[in-house]
Amino acid sequence: MPPSARSIVFLSDFGLSNEWVGICHVVMNRISPESPIVDLSHLVRPLDILFGAVLLKDSLRYIAEDAVVLAVVDPHVGEDRDLALETQDGRLFVGPDNGLFAPAWETVGGVRRAVEITSAEVVQQPVAESFHARDILCPAAAQLARGMTIDRLGSDVDPETLVGLTVPEPEIEPGKIRSEVVDFNRFGNVKLNAREEHLAAAGLDLARELAVEAVKASTRARRGATYADFDPGEYGIIVDPRGWVTLVRGNPASALEGLGLAAGDPVWITAASH
Amino acid sequence: MPPSARSIVFLSDFGLSNEWVGICHVVMNRISPESPIVDLSHLVRPLDILFGAVLLKDSLRYIAEDAVVLAVVDPHVGEDRDLALETQDGRLFVGPDNGLFAPAWETVGGVRRAVEITSAEVVQQPVAESFHARDILCPAAAQLARGMTIDRLGSDVDPETLVGLTVPEPEIEPGKIRSEVVDFNRFGNVKLNAREEHLAAAGLDLARELAVEAVKASTRARRGATYADFDPGEYGIIVDPRGWVTLVRGNPASALEGLGLAAGDPVWITAASH
Amino acid sequence: MPPSARSIVFLSDFGLSNEWVGICHVVMNRISPESPIVDLSHLVRPLDILFGAVLLKDSLRYIAEDAVVLAVVDPHVGEDRDLALETQDGRLFVGPDNGLFAPAWETVGGVRRAVEITSAEVVQQPVAESFHARDILCPAAAQLARGMTIDRLGSDVDPETLVGLTVPEPEIEPGKIRSEVVDFNRFGNVKLNAREEHLAAAGLDLARELAVEAVKASTRARRGATYADFDPGEYGIIVDPRGWVTLVRGNPASALEGLGLAAGDPVWITAASH
Repeated sequence: MPPSARSIVFLSDFGLSNEWVGICHVVMNRISPESPIVDLSHLVRPLDILFGAVLLKDSLRYIAEDAVVLAVVDPHVGEDRDLALETQDGRLFVGPDNGLFAPAWETVGGVRRAVEITSAEVVQQPVAESFHARDILCPAAAQLARGMTIDRLGSDVDPETLVGLTVPEPEIEPGKIRSEVVDFNRFGNVKLNAREEHLAAAGLDLARELAVEAVKASTRARRGATYADFDPGEYGIIVDPRGWVTLVRGNPASALEGLGLAAGDPVWITAASH
Repeated sequence: MPPSARSIVFLSDFGLSNEWVGICHVVMNRISPESPIVDLSHLVRPLDILFGAVLLKDSLRYIAEDAVVLAVVDPHVGEDRDLALETQDGRLFVGPDNGLFAPAWETVGGVRRAVEITSAEVVQQPVAESFHARDILCPAAAQLARGMTIDRLGSDVDPETLVGLTVPEPEIEPGKIRSEVVDFNRFGNVKLNAREEHLAAAGLDLARELAVEAVKASTRARRGATYADFDPGEYGIIVDPRGWVTLVRGNPASALEGLGLAAGDPVWITAASH
Repeated sequence: MPPSARSIVFLSDFGLSNEWVGICHVVMNRISPESPIVDLSHLVRPLDILFGAVLLKDSLRYIAEDAVVLAVVDPHVGEDRDLALETQDGRLFVGPDNGLFAPAWETVGGVRRAVEITSAEVVQQPVAESFHARDILCPAAAQLARGMTIDRLGSDVDPETLVGLTVPEPEIEPGKIRSEVVDFNRFGNVKLNAREEHLAAAGLDLARELAVEAVKASTRARRGATYADFDPGEYGIIVDPRGWVTLVRGNPASALEGLGLAAGDPVWITAASH
């Protein structure tokens, strides 16, 4: 039996320390009580559009095709246009016009239709300049989820005018990848902007050991399948569950500290010499 | 199509560090599996009834009229009566008799009917003295959500006997407001117990700059619309998304530290002299 | 009106700092959009099977009988079998074969049927070795929730071969209990592996005061009903809402620090001499 309303998948950088996520849920529940509201994450690094955009792109294949995807990471809230988008394959996205959806829509053929959310039927007054999510984006997502058509949300926007986003790619040459640190966690695991396919393109995917060079330090790192595959202090390289090449180190040591790395730093991966 | 069960909007001071919120969800899901359970916030400052009461009052206009509102902030759990309330406009509230709902019910005409939750059909034995939410309040909220009428929860209570709550108001005179610090966050933003309408009542709402005096320091502060409107270190005044006058300061400076403020401290706002 | 799909109750040690819980929700929502997904807790102590197993056992009586219980605490992800279990009383459990469900199934008569989740209809490729929850366990839980029968998930496993788990019991003799510290929180409250019934078995349940001995310190502790029953610095013993004997101390003092305790330490409880 099909559900009577679309699900809403919700992603933001609001964090969990105040009621912003909760009030957004309340607003959407009031408009579309039959819609499941699924929190993908609210811990996107604050104001980091690229972080949110890549998470959304990586997650898209797991999200129901008929769900409304609501994403809010908006350093310029009140200045960006508030948009609803329909992709070429029929997905619905709601969020700011700042590139947050660009990597995701590129994987599904681009945008078929874009609308700026301005309808008085949808926008809830008074609008708080610093919280369009509550007053504009959530009402729009919930209206779409309960069946309103996208054209009723506001006036058409030329998809050619949408703000894009460039995801920095690693530099590949035979036997060598130049990547960058894009994220790290409290265990000191370091996520690079390289994926399994980049290792393959450089001919490094079958090597059981690789050389890792940073500006301040270098090491050899063994390939493994999961975090637990390494001895204490040993460096390793795994592909994380989202497909990203990740530098790890056997507990309790930290790859981040051991290699003196920070976000944005370059990391070179080459074949280990013998 | 109307949902087959009411939603439950849930607010508490349980925090997110243990399974209390989860077990409450489990209990309600078992009784009313068709009810969406919407978490407004579980980070009400611990045991702070006023904090929860004001959040609930501010949020009420966003909450579905037919939702059951379950709120639990109960410093005297086991001593307060456990209540279900029906407001004059037909909303349903479930929680302790300690004033937590008083500011909210005042905005909707008061309480039409109050019942102490004592029915053996509803209360789940054994009752933990320190966790009435799990054993009494959640079962009652879920029974209401799936259609039980309020009279079946227990015996009537005279609404006149309900515990009230006074929300401290700022003192207003022409050109001057005496307010108090009610909350602050990790960015050093300081929320006062004054709203846009208080600024208007004092004739200060149109001023582009205001004088802010605390006991330990004073400053001028420019009016702005959002957190990002100010230069680093600059003091500003915004109205936050819930309508509260808030002292801010351009990142990375802290208004809280700069003015030497703490919760409960007085803050005077006057016209800036020229 | 019965819901059109079973609920899924979800327990893990994933924490709340990344998108793992969210992506699991997204995966299950896509397969069974009508199923409420209820988070019991994602703050099981990392990799601590016993912690998760006891929480699940304690919570089972509150969980809807027809819910699918998904639990993931898996220090050896990729090595343990991924299982779906049907208990003698008809409950459905999904998780790793590492004993996580053993204390729970013992309370409901044991396991009637066990299946290893291997069906190509269910498992989502590519499977991440370090995230079977996303690719194997969540799809299986959601398929069961929307009505798939357990036999279609994979091949039968002999219930006799399932990994068990021993929950350490306190040693009881007349007038004396030897227990262990199993958990503590930021308030310094210390949970022991003893319950009200152990106090009764030792003849200590009616005493208004008890003697508490640790290796480094000892004290008298008064029985109370809830955390707030004690004066600042006073030691007390309560039974927590899940039924566990807990050492507390009036705020702001810490029983954990005062008695020099750590997880796993022995604690002796005897009658207080007069």
